[in-house]
Amino acid sequence: MVERRKPIPVNEAVEKVMNYRLKGQTEKISINESDYRRLAEPIIAKHNIPSFDKSPYDGFALRSVDTAEASRDNPVEFEVIEHIGAGQVPQKELKNGQATRIMTGAQIPAGADCVAMFEICNAYEKNNQSFFSIKRRMSKDQNIIGEGTEVLKGEVLIEEGTLINPGVKALLATFGYHEIEVAKKPVIGVIATGTELLEVDEELQPGKIRNSNAPMIASQISRAGGICRYYGKLADEFESSYLAVKDALDEVDILITTGGVSVGDFDLMPDIYEKLGAEVLFNKIAMRPGSVTTAAVKGNQLLFGLSGNPSACYVGFELFVRPVIQHALFNNKPYLKRINAILADEFPKPNPFTRFVRSYITYESASVKIHLAGIDKSNVVSSLAQSTCFMVLPGGTRGFNPGDEVEALLLEDMEGQKDFS
Amino acid sequence: MVERRKPIPVNEAVEKVMNYRLKGQTEKISINESDYRRLAEPIIAKHNIPSFDKSPYDGFALRSVDTAEASRDNPVEFEVIEHIGAGQVPQKELKNGQATRIMTGAQIPAGADCVAMFEICNAYEKNNQSFFSIKRRMSKDQNIIGEGTEVLKGEVLIEEGTLINPGVKALLATFGYHEIEVAKKPVIGVIATGTELLEVDEELQPGKIRNSNAPMIASQISRAGGICRYYGKLADEFESSYLAVKDALDEVDILITTGGVSVGDFDLMPDIYEKLGAEVLFNKIAMRPGSVTTAAVKGNQLLFGLSGNPSACYVGFELFVRPVIQHALFNNKPYLKRINAILADEFPKPNPFTRFVRSYITYESASVKIHLAGIDKSNVVSSLAQSTCFMVLPGGTRGFNPGDEVEALLLEDMEGQKDFS
Repeated sequence: MVERRKPIPVNEAVEKVMNYRLKGQTEKISINESDYRRLAEPIIAKHNIPSFDKSPYDGFALRSVDTAEASRDNPVEFEVIEHIGAGQVPQKELKNGQATRIMTGAQIPAGADCVAMFEICNAYEKNNQSFFSIKRRMSKDQNIIGEGTEVLKGEVLIEEGTLINPGVKALLATFGYHEIEVAKKPVIGVIATGTELLEVDEELQPGKIRNSNAPMIASQISRAGGICRYYGKLADEFESSYLAVKDALDEVDILITTGGVSVGDFDLMPDIYEKLGAEVLFNKIAMRPGSVTTAAVKGNQLLFGLSGNPSACYVGFELFVRPVIQHALFNNKPYLKRINAILADEFPKPNPFTRFVRSYITYESASVKIHLAGIDKSNVVSSLAQSTCFMVLPGGTRGFNPGDEVEALLLEDMEGQKDFS
Repeated sequence: MVERRKPIPVNEAVEKVMNYRLKGQTEKISINESDYRRLAEPIIAKHNIPSFDKSPYDGFALRSVDTAEASRDNPVEFEVIEHIGAGQVPQKELKNGQATRIMTGAQIPAGADCVAMFEICNAYEKNNQSFFSIKRRMSKDQNIIGEGTEVLKGEVLIEEGTLINPGVKALLATFGYHEIEVAKKPVIGVIATGTELLEVDEELQPGKIRNSNAPMIASQISRAGGICRYYGKLADEFESSYLAVKDALDEVDILITTGGVSVGDFDLMPDIYEKLGAEVLFNKIAMRPGSVTTAAVKGNQLLFGLSGNPSACYVGFELFVRPVIQHALFNNKPYLKRINAILADEFPKPNPFTRFVRSYITYESASVKIHLAGIDKSNVVSSLAQSTCFMVLPGGTRGFNPGDEVEALLLEDMEGQKDFS
């Protein structure tokens, strides 16, 4: 018998899941392993930048007061008492009429208060000693990048939860964060159900199809920032299925089950949830695809029953599982980024339910166009491969035309947004 | 003495580098390791989809001819001779008045040519045998998804060079690609130069700064799809530097050197190129930042000398090194995606050279806005962390105002584009 299920709105389903969202954990890793992990601590400036007064140019550091009388007709002479490269530390303090030859980035010597670029200096030697003359007045602090003028010690530069991109990595390195507290990746278990399923390396058999959902979800988990643990296929037998689910729950933070193509495959799950003592949050959502998505909670663990239909499974994961993972990674923008876009194609079907249509984005003179994925092919199989977003078409509408403005949820954006809608 | 260098236009520099681009190599990996690798072979449908006539619904498969006389007043009776779940293979061929109970996705039995959904059937039992009656006519092929109607065997579904996203992974699994030919990641060597540099785990010392460019480039290499091999820092000494570069070239596909903040750090590189017998393709580019970017070629190996300035180094990598890596990964769109965007901020500075300004994108009612990264902070240090694109401001302009349409190069887009400009 098919159980009667009451569909709830998508927003409500997302909210229910996020009430039981996973608490994030942290771990310490090397900066060298940190690409695209999320920070579990803010990056704080551990020292001023620059950490010393430095020169922005190659030139001579000198005392501006010594140039007071300099003019086109009255060159003033300086004796060069030291040569300083970047990374070298000046040893000598300048006195009246003395200067230090200095390279870009190098520390300004004691006594000096400005830098004259080589181009305005006339350098020469006398008795094996370097000198130069200058025909213009310099002012105090001219061509000096003062200590702390770029960043002051203690400043919070990057918030926790931020993704470590190449620029963030440069900041980490600058301040000596060689070990970093990052969000620990939650472990997401995946169990496939359905006797019609073959594994990827099995030969095709009559009446059967290969299990494409589990590898697909594994990729989605990885893209969302989690670690996938695949437990294989369940037979359609209650006791062994119950035990498999129960055992998996001991090892994972979140458990996903996904079926084959048959609705019948899910028949066991309600009874398994009951025997586990898991509370079902919802088992039907007013949306297409993915209406049979189920979520349940046992203690602090979420269990998701995703549809066996590949598109429905894909959508169910992105809408309901992804934000839970992102929240556990300390991202305060855990939801898919939602933008507006101009529909490039026709979508003539009336729409009783909210629809999440496999789509991709293009750009045209600073505006965003959205296209149906796979519209040029009769098959839907390859449309997921083309998809970089979902077009969100609200229920109760009679179809959409090219030029209409619609909403899109971006699947490959890494920033996200604060609220679901 | 500072050598006179003739700057060449950015486009020309990109072209010169791409003339010596690396030839891609391939390797076979497990589908489980394939996330976000690039395919080195197309995905070809190895069988029809569906691979058998199948049912889109739970219902009864029957012979449409047997319903010829069915009407509201004349229910026609069928005997149910078999029950087939998804993945089960029907054993019995239907004869006159017989039907098979069938689940979604299951194979249509021999003899049947349509499926009646449960909802229109009145099921009952007689003498322990299942029967149902139906009050409407069914037509041939009604509710049957015919073999090969979604995909025909031999169809090219995905081109080589495509990134393996979750949807592509599902296709690979569907067709049994458990081992996949992918582009081998090129190995990019990185050598830092500059005596002012400390490693990330070293304590800060007077006059010195930590090496942030090497970790940053490592992340950029990884984002671009390559593998970074870091060779540490060179002292400013010719013979040891020459040998370090020469030895590194034996182990990598491409070699990057980057300095500290001083232009003087690069003084050794021209002589090293000469002693190696490397041909310098360019050593100055009419752009900001990154004007001192150098590229040289020895045999089929490219050597890049990136500026020691973090922003210049970052830009130099993305413009010149990234497309070489992407090409070696069989991406026929190796260049950064270039889109138009509406400037949200003011950029008052006149612009003698083409500028690549650290920026990020936002979306507003289907239009793309571009913002200067780090404009709200006095420091430039954290602006790279915020950047998701470069704003391209052509040379010879007097500044830009909010509302102006400008070009942007997207740094986190994974598709790319065919041509540089």
